[in-house]
This record gives sequence, structure tokens and C-alpha cells, in this order.
Amino acid sequence: MDAHSRKELDRILHPRSVAVVGASASPGKFGWIFLKSLIHIGFSGNLYPINKNVDEILGYKAYPSLAALPEVPDMVVVTIPARHVPDALEEALAAGVPGAVVITAGFGEDSDEGKLLEARVKEIAGRGIRVIGPNCFGVYSPRAGITVIPGSGFSRESGPVGFFAQSGGLTADLGQIAIGRGVKFSAMVSYGNAADVGELDMLDYFAHDPNTSIIAAYLEGVSDGPRFLRLLTEVAAKKPVIIWKGGASATGARMVMSHTGSMGGQAAIWDAVFNQTGAVKVRGLTELIDTLAAFSSLYPRAGRRIAMMGGGGALGVEASDIVDELGLVMPVFDGEIQAEINKHLPEFGKSAKNPVDTGTPLIGADPLAEIMRIIAGRDNVDVIFVVQLLFHSQVLMRRVAGQAQAPLALFAHYPKLAEMAGEISIGSGKPVIAVLPQTSITQSDEDLELEREIRRAADAFQSAGCVVFPTIDRALKALARVAGYQEYRELHGRAAAD
Amino acid sequence: MDAHSRKELDRILHPRSVAVVGASASPGKFGWIFLKSLIHIGFSGNLYPINKNVDEILGYKAYPSLAALPEVPDMVVVTIPARHVPDALEEALAAGVPGAVVITAGFGEDSDEGKLLEARVKEIAGRGIRVIGPNCFGVYSPRAGITVIPGSGFSRESGPVGFFAQSGGLTADLGQIAIGRGVKFSAMVSYGNAADVGELDMLDYFAHDPNTSIIAAYLEGVSDGPRFLRLLTEVAAKKPVIIWKGGASATGARMVMSHTGSMGGQAAIWDAVFNQTGAVKVRGLTELIDTLAAFSSLYPRAGRRIAMMGGGGALGVEASDIVDELGLVMPVFDGEIQAEINKHLPEFGKSAKNPVDTGTPLIGADPLAEIMRIIAGRDNVDVIFVVQLLFHSQVLMRRVAGQAQAPLALFAHYPKLAEMAGEISIGSGKPVIAVLPQTSITQSDEDLELEREIRRAADAFQSAGCVVFPTIDRALKALARVAGYQEYRELHGRAAAD
Repeated sequence: MDAHSRKELDRILHPRSVAVVGASASPGKFGWIFLKSLIHIGFSGNLYPINKNVDEILGYKAYPSLAALPEVPDMVVVTIPARHVPDALEEALAAGVPGAVVITAGFGEDSDEGKLLEARVKEIAGRGIRVIGPNCFGVYSPRAGITVIPGSGFSRESGPVGFFAQSGGLTADLGQIAIGRGVKFSAMVSYGNAADVGELDMLDYFAHDPNTSIIAAYLEGVSDGPRFLRLLTEVAAKKPVIIWKGGASATGARMVMSHTGSMGGQAAIWDAVFNQTGAVKVRGLTELIDTLAAFSSLYPRAGRRIAMMGGGGALGVEASDIVDELGLVMPVFDGEIQAEINKHLPEFGKSAKNPVDTGTPLIGADPLAEIMRIIAGRDNVDVIFVVQLLFHSQVLMRRVAGQAQAPLALFAHYPKLAEMAGEISIGSGKPVIAVLPQTSITQSDEDLELEREIRRAADAFQSAGCVVFPTIDRALKALARVAGYQEYRELHGRAAAD
Repeated sequence: MDAHSRKELDRILHPRSVAVVGASASPGKFGWIFLKSLIHIGFSGNLYPINKNVDEILGYKAYPSLAALPEVPDMVVVTIPARHVPDALEEALAAGVPGAVVITAGFGEDSDEGKLLEARVKEIAGRGIRVIGPNCFGVYSPRAGITVIPGSGFSRESGPVGFFAQSGGLTADLGQIAIGRGVKFSAMVSYGNAADVGELDMLDYFAHDPNTSIIAAYLEGVSDGPRFLRLLTEVAAKKPVIIWKGGASATGARMVMSHTGSMGGQAAIWDAVFNQTGAVKVRGLTELIDTLAAFSSLYPRAGRRIAMMGGGGALGVEASDIVDELGLVMPVFDGEIQAEINKHLPEFGKSAKNPVDTGTPLIGADPLAEIMRIIAGRDNVDVIFVVQLLFHSQVLMRRVAGQAQAPLALFAHYPKLAEMAGEISIGSGKPVIAVLPQTSITQSDEDLELEREIRRAADAFQSAGCVVFPTIDRALKALARVAGYQEYRELHGRAAAD
């Protein structure tokens, strides 16, 4: 893709004026929801509902056609029924609109009639208007104040992750789940049936976008295997590219690197893609969000030598099972360091070897920070895990230790601990990962109060620059992915840069 | 193990009288916490604190020694320092106490001196008192009102799962996490260093316990490989035995089936154990609790042919990736059934193929139940998944559809949907699995309200006999384990029963 094409995409992602073709005055219709979403997220450019039958929608003057607008909008969003979409795009093209997002479904994915409509969309796009879609949830662009459907809860705060996917639903799910995980986006693009803009364009766009330092995608298939492979190799040597290759289905057959068409063949080819290109493989929404959280916080400071500290649960058990397998190392501390750590631990039930087990969860911010400081000073540790089982703390404090009415005083030290963890991390250059297991699906209201405190603690750690995970194993797996990519980059990135 | 031994264990798990050697009047000490826990969970038998220096602890008359008690207690719990433990056990043996739980740490796991103390404990046990521990968190027995440390929040409601582990911390973690997942226990036993009672005793005990229909264990090693393998084969042909084999560490070397002592060798041996015996392999706390939830609700009604229904997110995407791999099948519905389902779906953005995608999350209980009823009537479906992305519902309802102040009215239909799901499940004999993704770690207070509604919905489904998972992939994996065991049981269980 050339610089001109990238600029066209950039305009769709950051429009100063948007027309909504199919804007509706009926609450609940896509053409209404989308307008409402733009207003809610705070789009500050000019907004033009296009609707022949009403004068005004949601406080905005409605226009009967694109031609009637006082200016040529940077982008049109199309939500009218599929059979009318080609005409609307012709009109946009004629008006000189550079880009369109077609939300409407009912194209190639639906029927033979839809395939013909999609071919027309493709043909019109070829004549000079860039089209995202059809059959998608559109674009989320926090800097521009553009959001996907359904996504009016998305943040205006932008971040390092550029994401693209065919699936609109997945894009909306990811955006929603990202909110609480400290993952922020430069942009998200769901391009649906990819009549025009597809994975090659998006990969190239984010590769050159100075606001994107982490690229992620959910892909069901690619349109041009060899080109995609070449581009991916080039891009992954410079920026991490995290890919969830999903849907080993008919769409996979579009992958033209192989002629087998078998699912096994597809999987093998994709494994080769991941091995050759340095792209980071994930599977499923949980792995995707965990990996994005890890890269956002840890890259490029990750490493394979970890220390773990915590207490009051099965601390080492969960970790020891998978540390080896992931290629991570939990070095045993020497006697001198153990003695130093032991000064801050209770007399019984503890261990200072690594993991450092405080024995009880009832331990304050100061001794934990002291231990963290000692660990951060060790040459053989790259990353520090602090595991806090707040549910045990609650039980011990409120139900057992006789402070049933105490206002969860125990949790009061988390802002302080998080702040100190952030300082130690910055001072030592070593990332701190906080593991704060959540409570279960159904709990009493009392446990909902615990949930609130856990979230506040998580928030404090995230604000201090530490990444938070709900389980040890998910944290370890995400760390291993960052460390693995760093090693690839070390080997191949320089060669690519030379 | 003979019937007599089982009866001895049964008495420790269901004592009518308990003495606490090391009971303390100082809040926070183990000997105080444990007493407090017993009071909190509501132990209704006679409770005797043993303490020379005080007359009374927490309202209970204290006695200077076991010999001074008005009766011989069924069980003593020992929380005094390790060096005094052998003498206390001698005293209990002399008094005729049949069983002891030694919480105290500082034995074989700690030092050479501790190893000698542990040998003494073992020798005393051999003379006629059954000992659980040392270095453990004890026993949780909901029917008897006995609880582990730290576990006073545990329920008095008993259930089908008998669990044992060396690790006390893990046992406490599992008990805590189980509370909201609908998993209920006949008993949990953490046996620590296994000076006397170990994995063979516990497996045998639960195999014969009429209150236990699902057995689960976390094992780091076994003391007698061949015997364990024989017993496991026998038991797993009758009851599901779910094992997390953890800690591929030095403790693994105790596994005498092999002389390699290598971790790879250990892993290979354990894989063979799982293949040969029908024991169900899990790894990590999350898999363990998911599998227990699945067996508690689905066994023996599971099957490999699934239908999935939901909408407003990436419904099929998450599932299609792993259904094949897990040996599950998602049969495509024929045109007639699709037409029937389509009657209850909105005009656009839907699919009735399987998964059934309602397109929007904003759909009421009645159409969902109608669709569920149609699906439950299909011969080629064994299990029904209903996936509800309540976070999207909230966004659409409160922020977009203009009902910002609505009291989460959308969620009001979940009790009704859950009730109907329960009825359809009972009527058809087909399990219904509800997937209700939780929100993220850190969220605003508004999202905490959403979390509360999700939990209420989950609670409603669980009360109606449906099992609830937070993600599709975790639900699928847990189902596959139950289906796999059922097939094993079908093949081998009968042979064993003949």
C-alpha cells in the first residue's frame, strides 16, 4: 500500500465530518444507535444525518441527500438495507466523499443476491472511494471520537494497540473487555466482508501509524497468502503483531498459500506462519486481551527470570506446573538473600526461597514493599509477580479475626503498595505484575463489596504502571509471549533494520 | 484399606466432639483462629479448648490437658509448635482419642530436625491414632460443621464432591472459589506431609463414601505408585476421579512406578495413568473448579453434540476454534428447523444455523425460551449453550437506547429465562449451560452494578439446575471432560461392575 492509500484510511479513521446515510429517528434502529453512539462518545466534528423524511434527529439537522450537505464529509456511515447500498455509494462517490463504512449485513455472507451486491460495492470502491465493510460494526477511533456498534461505552483515551478483524461482534467484545484491563487502542477496525479494505491494508496502515506500537488482529482468512506473509514478516520485525487465527472454517479456504483446503493443513500453515514471521500467536478472547495487556505494560522490559511473592494460598503450586513448560525460570534465592527477606516475614509458615511465601495474607504494604525492593535488586530476576488473595484476607479479617464490622480496613494499604510497586518498578527497570484473583460468579452482596475492593486494588496497580491479571497461569502465559517476541525481535529486528 | 480404617477416617471427618490442643486466647494465633472458625461455621458438637493458662476461650471452658476432659473427644486438632507435637499425640493416644489433625508446620518439609519429629509422629500413628497432617490446613466437613484454615466462610451445605490434597493453601483456595460456582463438597481433606493418612486412604475412603459421587484431588506425588494405579483404575470405573497432578518437582520422585526421576518421565507416566485409568486430567485451579462445576451439573447427562444460542457478540468465533479439537460437534440445523427458529428472531443480523445468533443481545426471555425448546427437541443435540453478553446489553440499554436511568430493567427477565431453561432441561433430559461473561478487573461503580446483575443471573441459572461458566471456551473444555469420562465409564465401568 502506498502513502496515499494510508492517508485515505487515516481520513476514514479520523474524519472531521461524518454523514450517516440511513440515520433514523426511531430509537433502536442501527441508524439511530450509531448516531447516538457518536454523540455519546463525543465526536466533535460535523455530524450530518441523511434522511429524507425528517428535519432533525437527536438534535442534528437532517439532510435529504449527500448532495444537499453544506460540505463534502470526510466519511459516510451507511446503515440502509443492502439493496440500496450500491446507489448510496455511487452518490457518495459522485459527491467526492473519500471514504465509507458500510455497517449493513445481507451481502456475500448471506445469499447469491448479496454476492452480486457485494461485487457492485467492490467495483464502486475501485473507482475512488475507500470502503470498510459491508457487514461490519465499523471503526473505533478514540482520538477522533468515532465508535463501533455497539460501543458507546468506549473510552476517548487512545493507546498503543491497533486492532483489526473481520468480525464486528468480536471487535465490540474486545473493546468492551479492554476497558477494565488497561488496554488502550490507537484504533479498532472491523472490516466485515472486506469488499475493499482488508487485512493487508490494515496491517500496512498500523505498521506505518506512529500512534500504534502494538498491532493485533483476529483473522479468519487472508485474501493473498504470499503477500500477507511477506508483509507480516516485514512488520513483525519492527512492531509486535499479535494474531488470533480463528474459524478453521470455509473462510480458511481463501488462504491461498496451500491448495489442500483441509483444516489440518490450514493449521499447519498458520503454525509455520507464526514460526517464520515472529507474529505472536494467541487463541480466544481471553488470551488476546491478556496478551494485549502484557505487551501494553511489559514490552520491551519482559524477561524469562521471574520472582513471585505472596501468601495465604497455593502460591507455588499454580506456578511450578507451568513455569518450565513456558520456558520461564524461577531461580531459588541464595541463603543470604533469604535471610534478608526473612527479616520481613512472620516466624511460621513462610518461605523465602522463591516463590516468597508470606504464609499469611495478612501482611501490610511496608514489609511487602521491602521484600519487593530486595527482589528487584537481584541480577537474576527480570520480572516480579505479587500475588494477593484478597478473598482469604476478607475471610480472615472479617469473619475470623473478629473484625466483622471493620470497613475492609485491610484493603486500605493497596493504594500504598501499588504506588511503592510502581516506584520500585521504575527505579529498577523491572516490571511488576500484580495477580489479584477475582471472586466467583455468584456471591453475596458482601462479596460484591470484596469485588469492589479487588477492582480498586487492581486500578491502583494499573495506575502505577503495573499490569494486573486474575490468575497466575494467565499472567505467566502472557509474560512468556512478550519475552518470546522480544527474543525474536532481538534476533531478527536488527537484521531487518540494517 | 479395610472397613475399620474407613470408619476411623469417617470419625475424624464427622466428629461429635473436638479438642483443640494449642487453643489460644490471643486473636490471630492459629489456635484461636481455628476455634473461631469452628464456632463460625456452626460446629454443634462439644468443643474443648486445651490450654493450661486460661479458664475460658471464646466462651468455651478451657481444660489443662486431654486427660482432664469430661469425655474422650472423637478428634483433636493440634496447633502447638512442632517440637511439642509428638508428646501431644502420645497424650491423645493414651487418652484413647481415635484421630488427630496436626496443623502445625516445621516438620519434614522444613529441616532435618523436623524430619525426626515427623518420623516420631508416624511411629505414634502406627500405634493406634489416625493422623492427618502435619503441615496442613485440616479438614472441611460441611455436614459435621468442621472447617479448614482459613475457611470460616465455607458453607454448611454438603454436596457430591470429595476432595483431597497435600496442599492446605490449595484446599482453602478451592473451597473459597467453589462458593460461587455451585460446587458443593461431601468433604475436603488437606493431609500435608502425609505422615499417616495419605492419598491411598483418601481415594479409598471417598470411593466407599455414599455421600461422595465425584472424587477430586490435587497430587504432587504418590507414596506407592503400583498400588495407587490399581486402586485408581478400580475407583475410576465407578466414580469420576478428577486429578490435578501438580508440582513436577522433587516430590514427583516419590512416584515409584518409574526409576527415571526425570520430570519428562514423570509427565509421561502420568499421561499413561490418565489414559489407562479413566481418571480425568486437569491442570490449574481454574480447570479444576470448571471441571467440578461441570461434573456436578452435567454428569451423567453430557454428550458431544452441542447447540449454541446467543447474540450481540462474537458467538461462533470463540466456539468454532475449539469445538473440533475437543471432539465436540455443532451440527448445522436443517432448513425446516432454521425456519422454525427464525420465527423468533429479528429480521436482520441473525443466523439460525447453529450457533443460533439472535443478532442483538436485546431479546427477551420468551423468544429465547422458545428457541431453546425447539433446539431441545432435536435428536442431534445433547447439550444446549445459552450465551448472554450482558455487558453489551447494558451498553445498548443504558447508554445508547436512551434508558440511561432505567434500573437495569433488561436484566429483569433473567430469573424467568433461567426458570424456563431449568424446565426445558428437566423436560428434555438435556443439560443447559449458561455462559455469562463477567466484566473486567477494574471498572466503574456503574459496572459493579452490572456485575451484581450478572451474578444474580448466574445464581438464577444455578438455582434452576444449569451450570454457569464465564467464557465459552472454558465451558466447552469442561463439557468435553465430562463427555470423555462418560464414554470411558460406558466402556469400562460395566466390565468393572460385572
